[in-house]
Amino acid sequence: MIIDIHGHITAPDSLYVYKSNILSHRGGHGRGAVGATDEDVRAALNSPVFGGSSHLQQLQEVGTDLQIISPRPYQMMHSEDPRLVGWFIEETNLLIERQFKLYPNTFRGCCGLPQSPGVPIEKALPALEKAIKEQGFVGCLINPDPGEAGGRDTPPLGDRYWYPLYEKLVELDVPGHIHSAGCRSHRLIYSLHFINEESVGVVSLLNSTVFTDFPTLKIIVSHGGGAIPYQWGRFEASSLRRGGQRFSEKLRNLWYDTVLYTKDSLELLFKTVGPERCMFGTERPGVGTVKDPRTGRWMDETRYIIEDIPFLSSADKKMIFEDNAKKVFKLTTAASA
Amino acid sequence: MIIDIHGHITAPDSLYVYKSNILSHRGGHGRGAVGATDEDVRAALNSPVFGGSSHLQQLQEVGTDLQIISPRPYQMMHSEDPRLVGWFIEETNLLIERQFKLYPNTFRGCCGLPQSPGVPIEKALPALEKAIKEQGFVGCLINPDPGEAGGRDTPPLGDRYWYPLYEKLVELDVPGHIHSAGCRSHRLIYSLHFINEESVGVVSLLNSTVFTDFPTLKIIVSHGGGAIPYQWGRFEASSLRRGGQRFSEKLRNLWYDTVLYTKDSLELLFKTVGPERCMFGTERPGVGTVKDPRTGRWMDETRYIIEDIPFLSSADKKMIFEDNAKKVFKLTTAASA
Amino acid sequence: MIIDIHGHITAPDSLYVYKSNILSHRGGHGRGAVGATDEDVRAALNSPVFGGSSHLQQLQEVGTDLQIISPRPYQMMHSEDPRLVGWFIEETNLLIERQFKLYPNTFRGCCGLPQSPGVPIEKALPALEKAIKEQGFVGCLINPDPGEAGGRDTPPLGDRYWYPLYEKLVELDVPGHIHSAGCRSHRLIYSLHFINEESVGVVSLLNSTVFTDFPTLKIIVSHGGGAIPYQWGRFEASSLRRGGQRFSEKLRNLWYDTVLYTKDSLELLFKTVGPERCMFGTERPGVGTVKDPRTGRWMDETRYIIEDIPFLSSADKKMIFEDNAKKVFKLTTAASA
Amino acid sequence: MIIDIHGHITAPDSLYVYKSNILSHRGGHGRGAVGATDEDVRAALNSPVFGGSSHLQQLQEVGTDLQIISPRPYQMMHSEDPRLVGWFIEETNLLIERQFKLYPNTFRGCCGLPQSPGVPIEKALPALEKAIKEQGFVGCLINPDPGEAGGRDTPPLGDRYWYPLYEKLVELDVPGHIHSAGCRSHRLIYSLHFINEESVGVVSLLNSTVFTDFPTLKIIVSHGGGAIPYQWGRFEASSLRRGGQRFSEKLRNLWYDTVLYTKDSLELLFKTVGPERCMFGTERPGVGTVKDPRTGRWMDETRYIIEDIPFLSSADKKMIFEDNAKKVFKLTTAASA
Amino acid sequence: MIIDIHGHITAPDSLYVYKSNILSHRGGHGRGAVGATDEDVRAALNSPVFGGSSHLQQLQEVGTDLQIISPRPYQMMHSEDPRLVGWFIEETNLLIERQFKLYPNTFRGCCGLPQSPGVPIEKALPALEKAIKEQGFVGCLINPDPGEAGGRDTPPLGDRYWYPLYEKLVELDVPGHIHSAGCRSHRLIYSLHFINEESVGVVSLLNSTVFTDFPTLKIIVSHGGGAIPYQWGRFEASSLRRGGQRFSEKLRNLWYDTVLYTKDSLELLFKTVGPERCMFGTERPGVGTVKDPRTGRWMDETRYIIEDIPFLSSADKKMIFEDNAKKVFKLTTAASA
Amino acid sequence: MIIDIHGHITAPDSLYVYKSNILSHRGGHGRGAVGATDEDVRAALNSPVFGGSSHLQQLQEVGTDLQIISPRPYQMMHSEDPRLVGWFIEETNLLIERQFKLYPNTFRGCCGLPQSPGVPIEKALPALEKAIKEQGFVGCLINPDPGEAGGRDTPPLGDRYWYPLYEKLVELDVPGHIHSAGCRSHRLIYSLHFINEESVGVVSLLNSTVFTDFPTLKIIVSHGGGAIPYQWGRFEASSLRRGGQRFSEKLRNLWYDTVLYTKDSLELLFKTVGPERCMFGTERPGVGTVKDPRTGRWMDETRYIIEDIPFLSSADKKMIFEDNAKKVFKLTTAASA
Repeated sequence: MIIDIHGHITAPDSLYVYKSNILSHRGGHGRGAVGATDEDVRAALNSPVFGGSSHLQQLQEVGTDLQIISPRPYQMMHSEDPRLVGWFIEETNLLIERQFKLYPNTFRGCCGLPQSPGVPIEKALPALEKAIKEQGFVGCLINPDPGEAGGRDTPPLGDRYWYPLYEKLVELDVPGHIHSAGCRSHRLIYSLHFINEESVGVVSLLNSTVFTDFPTLKIIVSHGGGAIPYQWGRFEASSLRRGGQRFSEKLRNLWYDTVLYTKDSLELLFKTVGPERCMFGTERPGVGTVKDPRTGRWMDETRYIIEDIPFLSSADKKMIFEDNAKKVFKLTTAASA
Repeated sequence: MIIDIHGHITAPDSLYVYKSNILSHRGGHGRGAVGATDEDVRAALNSPVFGGSSHLQQLQEVGTDLQIISPRPYQMMHSEDPRLVGWFIEETNLLIERQFKLYPNTFRGCCGLPQSPGVPIEKALPALEKAIKEQGFVGCLINPDPGEAGGRDTPPLGDRYWYPLYEKLVELDVPGHIHSAGCRSHRLIYSLHFINEESVGVVSLLNSTVFTDFPTLKIIVSHGGGAIPYQWGRFEASSLRRGGQRFSEKLRNLWYDTVLYTKDSLELLFKTVGPERCMFGTERPGVGTVKDPRTGRWMDETRYIIEDIPFLSSADKKMIFEDNAKKVFKLTTAASA
Repeated sequence: MIIDIHGHITAPDSLYVYKSNILSHRGGHGRGAVGATDEDVRAALNSPVFGGSSHLQQLQEVGTDLQIISPRPYQMMHSEDPRLVGWFIEETNLLIERQFKLYPNTFRGCCGLPQSPGVPIEKALPALEKAIKEQGFVGCLINPDPGEAGGRDTPPLGDRYWYPLYEKLVELDVPGHIHSAGCRSHRLIYSLHFINEESVGVVSLLNSTVFTDFPTLKIIVSHGGGAIPYQWGRFEASSLRRGGQRFSEKLRNLWYDTVLYTKDSLELLFKTVGPERCMFGTERPGVGTVKDPRTGRWMDETRYIIEDIPFLSSADKKMIFEDNAKKVFKLTTAASA
Repeated sequence: MIIDIHGHITAPDSLYVYKSNILSHRGGHGRGAVGATDEDVRAALNSPVFGGSSHLQQLQEVGTDLQIISPRPYQMMHSEDPRLVGWFIEETNLLIERQFKLYPNTFRGCCGLPQSPGVPIEKALPALEKAIKEQGFVGCLINPDPGEAGGRDTPPLGDRYWYPLYEKLVELDVPGHIHSAGCRSHRLIYSLHFINEESVGVVSLLNSTVFTDFPTLKIIVSHGGGAIPYQWGRFEASSLRRGGQRFSEKLRNLWYDTVLYTKDSLELLFKTVGPERCMFGTERPGVGTVKDPRTGRWMDETRYIIEDIPFLSSADKKMIFEDNAKKVFKLTTAASA
Repeated sequence: MIIDIHGHITAPDSLYVYKSNILSHRGGHGRGAVGATDEDVRAALNSPVFGGSSHLQQLQEVGTDLQIISPRPYQMMHSEDPRLVGWFIEETNLLIERQFKLYPNTFRGCCGLPQSPGVPIEKALPALEKAIKEQGFVGCLINPDPGEAGGRDTPPLGDRYWYPLYEKLVELDVPGHIHSAGCRSHRLIYSLHFINEESVGVVSLLNSTVFTDFPTLKIIVSHGGGAIPYQWGRFEASSLRRGGQRFSEKLRNLWYDTVLYTKDSLELLFKTVGPERCMFGTERPGVGTVKDPRTGRWMDETRYIIEDIPFLSSADKKMIFEDNAKKVFKLTTAASA
Repeated sequence: MIIDIHGHITAPDSLYVYKSNILSHRGGHGRGAVGATDEDVRAALNSPVFGGSSHLQQLQEVGTDLQIISPRPYQMMHSEDPRLVGWFIEETNLLIERQFKLYPNTFRGCCGLPQSPGVPIEKALPALEKAIKEQGFVGCLINPDPGEAGGRDTPPLGDRYWYPLYEKLVELDVPGHIHSAGCRSHRLIYSLHFINEESVGVVSLLNSTVFTDFPTLKIIVSHGGGAIPYQWGRFEASSLRRGGQRFSEKLRNLWYDTVLYTKDSLELLFKTVGPERCMFGTERPGVGTVKDPRTGRWMDETRYIIEDIPFLSSADKKMIFEDNAKKVFKLTTAASA
């Protein structure tokens, strides 16, 4: 069974018309609602997106059995007015819920949180609790930089600012998935900001006492851990100098998805953190949904790359494709239900 | 011959006493000078530093024949008052000059630039010109973030802001080495900021027209290119979608040093950008100068790792250890002179 | 013939999906385009909007023969990043152009301008020139507060900041229609900000030398002139104290639309500025497209109110409904073409 | 009996010399005091002001029997240092008290409040309580924008920020009179800022739950309600769309003065909000105290205009001129005392 | 003959009423004018001020023959809106001109300048030129801190920012008198800010090349030179360390007034800078116009203290009381004219 | 016996290397430590400094028996990141402690405090308590402007902000010595900022109720009291006008050191505040450690000047040189122990 833990919603246009509206009237028309029908939700998943086929077709093409979908990150607009953010995240989560309830064999949901720079993380917890307990989500995204590189910084993930969220994740026994959102800086695009924020998140978490304080906390790092599986040597050196646990060992407190697209990088990831800590992810349809003319394959068809890696055993691959995700997200496949 | 292109000055204490002073009197005592004697300069290089042996001994231990030294980056204080920055960088360059003139068989110099956020890069060019033409330096550091993550942003390296520098580098036919300095953000330490800024620099440069506009420009990226040799897939996908040259091909417009410390990462680097674009570097003595109790080796003794990589030919290794550096920095070894 | 000079585009959803996208990727995906087909454009005008009937039906219901359409103001987002504003306004103008070319008997276009706070108004002139000369627009909106009440003020309309625009309007012989856009202040909604900005605009213009310097400039004030036709007495008093032309006479340098919805207010407008300076407008479909249960009529069905005003002659009404608009916008009806 | 509820103090020069002084020494000379004698106070009211006659004569000329006087609003300087504001408002209130005690048949007092942007409104309540209970004032001014359009916003009047004031007004059973003060923006003059702030205040109050929460609260809007009696249609439409009470009905929760100067506007006001909610006001001597050469009358001689309005009954006029004011301000005429 | 070079205007109240007005309407009423009559001007000088007698009487009491009067510094409001500053300074200068023309045997004028922080000093030169050439002033005040300690700094007096003013003073051959104005800081009062700014001014001027570049420039320092005649030792030490002219010699490039009030301090001043560089000044009526109950004398009756200093010769005293002032201000006594 | 109460540490270079390091890594390397040996501490005091001889020799040269040493003020960097300030001040205090324990007959310690602008002074009290109770210090420096003229103001010394410090000083029965640190303004150097801040401190303290509220509080003002002993007349005048205690009497609530360098100024100080309130101080080695070629003497050899002042009795001189210091600092000489 192939579980892709890193997918984002393909939403009806009405979600983005709604967003455009609230950003423009700024509440002047009231909260409103997206108002999509089940038909609209189904149509969105069955209409061509990047690359010519629909979201559902794209999963089939590469043999994905189950995908965990979350908000389209670059749309989350966490740096906007908190009231508008709250409305938009709530509407997005509602649409994701509709999708995984309409397609129970295909989707599970990872909710977005109404985060805001300068606002205590506690404010996001009711939405999390509702998503997990009432709506049936199996995890949440964590944006380590809700200010979206716009000049309003949030403490890094090792800081006590985040402890109320960690407590709640532990209490609910669901994972948090590190994934930043937009990027207001003119120096880099959001897609690279993802990578940099993952590096910042990993280093901050592992140099803090978070996993001592929350030994059962489950944190997933997107995109193969940012720069760290490649750059871990310099942090290993520092940890040797300071004494205590090696950085390379602490790396195994985290989970990593495989959204990397290239064979050498995937191999580096597995060698560095071990298949026990990796979960298959593609972000498909997404940035990698483009055919490479040299290979004739989609760049995000990484399933086949992983299946071909010689140093991974069958058990390793099963962990990557299925077992780890089932364990971390406590998935029970609908088919078996 | 082993050339280490990435070393930083081991300066007499008086350099940092000087820095502490100018930061405190802010010019009230006048410019002043470090006032180190040749004896002080020699003593600094022959006194124990990290790890118990001296800078010169550390080079011998790992068989480095020639090292290119630059300012200790985290000390460059580019975000401070520009007048003070100018003084400090000038003094640092003078000490580096003293070192490579006192040890002509061991050192070459890569100068620092008096950069400041919000100040046109033109202001740094007289110092560059003097360093290359009068002092005998063979390259310069480029800090892509002179604001040191302190809220005053500088345009990214693909922006025309940097063109006067690129013109001057081409005119002088010397390389610029991307290496950020301090980091004022509380979210990450300078050492990780290096990595993030290298990623920002690489993506900005390769998605710009800089190498079309300056085909002979030589830019070196520190620390194995930040995150990019690991994360290039997502940028490749974007380039395929946009058309034009592939990102992976554009990666070969840059040079990379090997300051990575771990075998798998070094291999990934060589596979990704090719040995033709890599230059041996260690930053020794520096962050990696710590013994790994598991191996009994210094983490920055990466020469032996590289020598053992089976897929590199002897010619590849000679390029990495010697030929590329000689070509890029136009080195003529003093011994042969 | 009934000409409604104040209508806003009913656009396909794809326009707002596009807006939501560029606000999220901030240029990271490139400029892109809305990509609506003619079919989409037609569908938007034939689908139910506020009140149950389509835009085209709503015009028919109240007997409007020709409507001048402009961007939906609260969506113009002038306070956002200027690059994004430029893209969005250009796309909006393109859709308006499509509408008036697909329905040449029903629509004419009044373009939006890519204004930005802190940016000289000259930057908006190429878009204006293109709209009038190449695309066939007959006027433009002027947002007197592109900062959208967000803390970045623009000089008032009597200031020389605006002179390049006035020169261009005179040169092109087209009117500028004062209409603000969004409102970032938490103190009031955009709809009231329209009114306040109209008052600010009228007073600033009439207490300046704009109409002395540009005697043929044509400026239309939305929503019946904001507060001024009701509050003109206090400005009249000041003008009497200062000497020179009375404020009430200067009021006749401007044009006013009739977007007011209530009989007493419409009568006050006609009495105060004269039917010679008024043009029929409804903003339909828009804020007034709601049925008043007391009358059973749409609030924006003001045509019938005006037709019933006893003190207006037939010629007055023809001026209001048709002649003034034809003169100011230099309209030649398509039917006669 | 003619009661003019909207007059401002004609103060001895020493009040403004005092103000100029405290703004200059900023407390360095201590609090000080205006130090005007009763003679000075009388002289100020008997010396020519705008238009050649004295304040007292101007009242007589138009037959005003009783005037409620408050601080000269544009002088209140609420955006200045709170300590200085407190002193100045206190001195101004003291002079007003002197005036209504020296002329008990002619004047009543409406006090100013020491408001400051960013300071809780509670800080102004002791001054209010003292003014009503100890000094004999019958109401207070409320400045909805103590930041004086200078970039420091205050929540709008419907916000809970203002609730402590409303509670106190209800407790004391006195009205609050909405009247902004100075205007630091270069875009408009204070006189137009009055109008805009009245519109903002009315819409915010009527779209909030203030009158549900404080059913006996008495709020007077200056200058005939800003733009709203002219522009109410657009707010009516919104209220119809939302359901609940109509905006036009909610308008009757407020009181309005008649400071408008022109016949058509006065008629519009009476038709829109009803004579039951209007109180005669002139601001005389003030902005309207100028003779219109066409009529030979003072613009603020509006008593005669109102007396001539045919659709008002005698009872209506008595309400406007006398009864409403007596009820709202709980006036007992000194003559009857 | 006794010449007091440091007096400030005793203005009619109308000047400060005017100031209060323009600060409140911020130009909304137009520029306006003070409108004082000659009678008002005379009355102001003949009415009791501090201490019970009038300005003119106070001069007589201590035997002052001629006083140079300038604006009351703490009232100059240089940190306010530049347009308002320009109006107020112009009105103040006009009143000073009236005073010295009405009392040609008693007064000469030292004008104020319309300075503003962040505005080039060139903007103040037309007012200076007019004052000297057309109005008959004999010098000007220089405020080294027009930002009035409110967070907007101006370069110190040794900076080239001030060179256009120095050129103009040299060209007109009149002195500039260093005297700051108000103080917005809560840490100190304006009166102490005077002293601190004088110290800053003296040190900046003497450590710059101003007197090399403008050898004939005449600069007077108020209040006996701030702290410097008492604290000069530390600056002398620095000058000895640096070499070049001694600080104590450079002190003699400046002129000093004697506004000190105490015998020991006056003696220190004369000993330190020499009677050749001192000019009698009292600021009377001003801060020192209070009777000391121990001596029964006004504190600003310093004439008698100076006359009693044993180490001053008659010629020294004549220089201090008369000759230096005549030379620096090029005074020709009206009596002799 | 000659006690110099105003000396600053002559530290090993390693203190400033440490400072330079923490300012650069900003905590990234951890807190670290200076790591100087006793030998280094001794060497620093025995190596030539300003003027050619060592700190210890310089004391001998002028016959100083005991010196109270504190941090070198301009190095204290109070405006930097509070965490870094805390580390640096702690290290500096540790080195001072080492000095006075290694040389118990020569030195006593006056500690620095970890002050920060915007941080309550309570945060500095644990360091103070430890220094006095555990380390053996006899007083502390107080920086009235920890923002170092960089735009972040601290309330003046008379404000209740400082009361927790005053309470602690009284409780510990040790004096606080007013001495500012660096100066970030470009308008003046730190050395003059000392003087200005002393003036601000004296005036604020004496015009407050601090000495009424803390009658036993001991506050020493550096550098002879800033400008105040020279400029006290203007404050005396204000106090006479206000009534209450004279300013000149209140001056005697404070203690003053004699760091002035010139005879006339020293005489003025003694005359103004009385020898009962003065303590000998030289800051040697420091700004005054330069030979005056005219006299052949060090400028800070002020002992001889004081000994020669004719109006001081032997008892006066003993108070200045010895008795006052012993009383204020509760010194028991080590020799007698």
